[in-house]
Amino acid sequence: MANSASGEGVAERIVRVLETFGVDRTVQTASEIGRRAGLPSSTAHRLVDELVRAGILERDDERRLRLGLRLWELAQRGSTALRLRQAALPHMERVQAELREHTQLAVLEREEALFLERLSHPEAVSNITRVAGRLPLHASSSGLVLLAHADPALRERVLGSPLRAVGPGTVTDARALRRLLGEIRRTGFAAAPGSIEAVSTGVAVPLRDRGSVIAALSAVLPRDAPIAPALRALREAAAGIEAGLRAARED
Amino acid sequence: MANSASGEGVAERIVRVLETFGVDRTVQTASEIGRRAGLPSSTAHRLVDELVRAGILERDDERRLRLGLRLWELAQRGSTALRLRQAALPHMERVQAELREHTQLAVLEREEALFLERLSHPEAVSNITRVAGRLPLHASSSGLVLLAHADPALRERVLGSPLRAVGPGTVTDARALRRLLGEIRRTGFAAAPGSIEAVSTGVAVPLRDRGSVIAALSAVLPRDAPIAPALRALREAAAGIEAGLRAARED
Repeated sequence: MANSASGEGVAERIVRVLETFGVDRTVQTASEIGRRAGLPSSTAHRLVDELVRAGILERDDERRLRLGLRLWELAQRGSTALRLRQAALPHMERVQAELREHTQLAVLEREEALFLERLSHPEAVSNITRVAGRLPLHASSSGLVLLAHADPALRERVLGSPLRAVGPGTVTDARALRRLLGEIRRTGFAAAPGSIEAVSTGVAVPLRDRGSVIAALSAVLPRDAPIAPALRALREAAAGIEAGLRAARED
Repeated sequence: MANSASGEGVAERIVRVLETFGVDRTVQTASEIGRRAGLPSSTAHRLVDELVRAGILERDDERRLRLGLRLWELAQRGSTALRLRQAALPHMERVQAELREHTQLAVLEREEALFLERLSHPEAVSNITRVAGRLPLHASSSGLVLLAHADPALRERVLGSPLRAVGPGTVTDARALRRLLGEIRRTGFAAAPGSIEAVSTGVAVPLRDRGSVIAALSAVLPRDAPIAPALRALREAAAGIEAGLRAARED
């Protein structure tokens, strides 16, 4: 259907157009979109016009484009991410009120940790994650929990590929990482001091549904803060979220 | 580009496919999607295959389809809705902790109030709004605030069209609605007792950015609760959010 000369479909070209938008680039011209998506100018202009008609992009008075609210609405409405997030939010609020640090919810997506939600406290320590942001599985505490419980084939793929250092404490040695993942499965939590940023320690616990780990719940603490209180709050929240997911299924 | 016989573009067909998913229908077969989107079966199957390749849809082991996390991520990352929501969330949490009722954030989208966020309290009164849900402008307190401050042409269009009753207290008389909108502009808030549900009263205040009303912040109270405390909390939160938006711009 509607393939270009390269054999790429329109849906893939649309995704390439959407990918040119980001947290730091919410407004662009059609020409900028075309250049960044690697599309010929006439193709880019036609596709942008079509996306505006469909409500996926919006054009302002200066003919600059931004993502349409309609896209957000469509993605949001039918998404399983939204369900998990809604089940988790009240419990995350409780964790955050208690710890007064960042509290986050992440899932495994295309071999990375994708952050579905983040609650922040104005006085919390530094934290580079963003809602809809990603971090490598081996680097963040959430990613480590997801990796520890991932499909063994995926785990071996990650262990077999180069492990980039994100922070000064990132575990980049495959053997050390394998030991760490076993420990996370045994103890039921991951602590990652300085793995993302030197000043902070991530602490994460798994969230289970129907027996499988579906997400990680984490907090970002100052580097030398005790982790026991955070771990207690996260575990209590995880149990609450899991009970909520079970109850929603039985409705 | 890639037009069907009807002259409809692929982007519009993709939107029709995405529209078949919703809060109560997160999993479908390709045939169900085709039927609900009004597409010929072969077209639907080809389009679904293409959307799966692009990551917009995901297919499970039973070949059933759901919206891909990739779509959520793309929509979320570059969206202005996300920025507003992130600026508002901590303030909404404070309102909700104080009132212990639903707290909501809505924007004007295609002549309806679109809800970007909703925080709920387990013991709060009934509330039919959902994240990414919509309500008519004339019926919800948020919608009334948005309508009172909307472009005059839009306001006249709404006043000139049939005003459907949603709850027992919905204002459906155009002259009464016009008076109400004037009052909302004068007093700076909307109260809508029984306008959506008999048991509750919505209270909403405008959120301004660069001098324009960009959203409405609201709480849903039991029908006969005093509105003054809610109004105070909402106004304080609105001022905080507006200051946050200004500060973010100056960064």
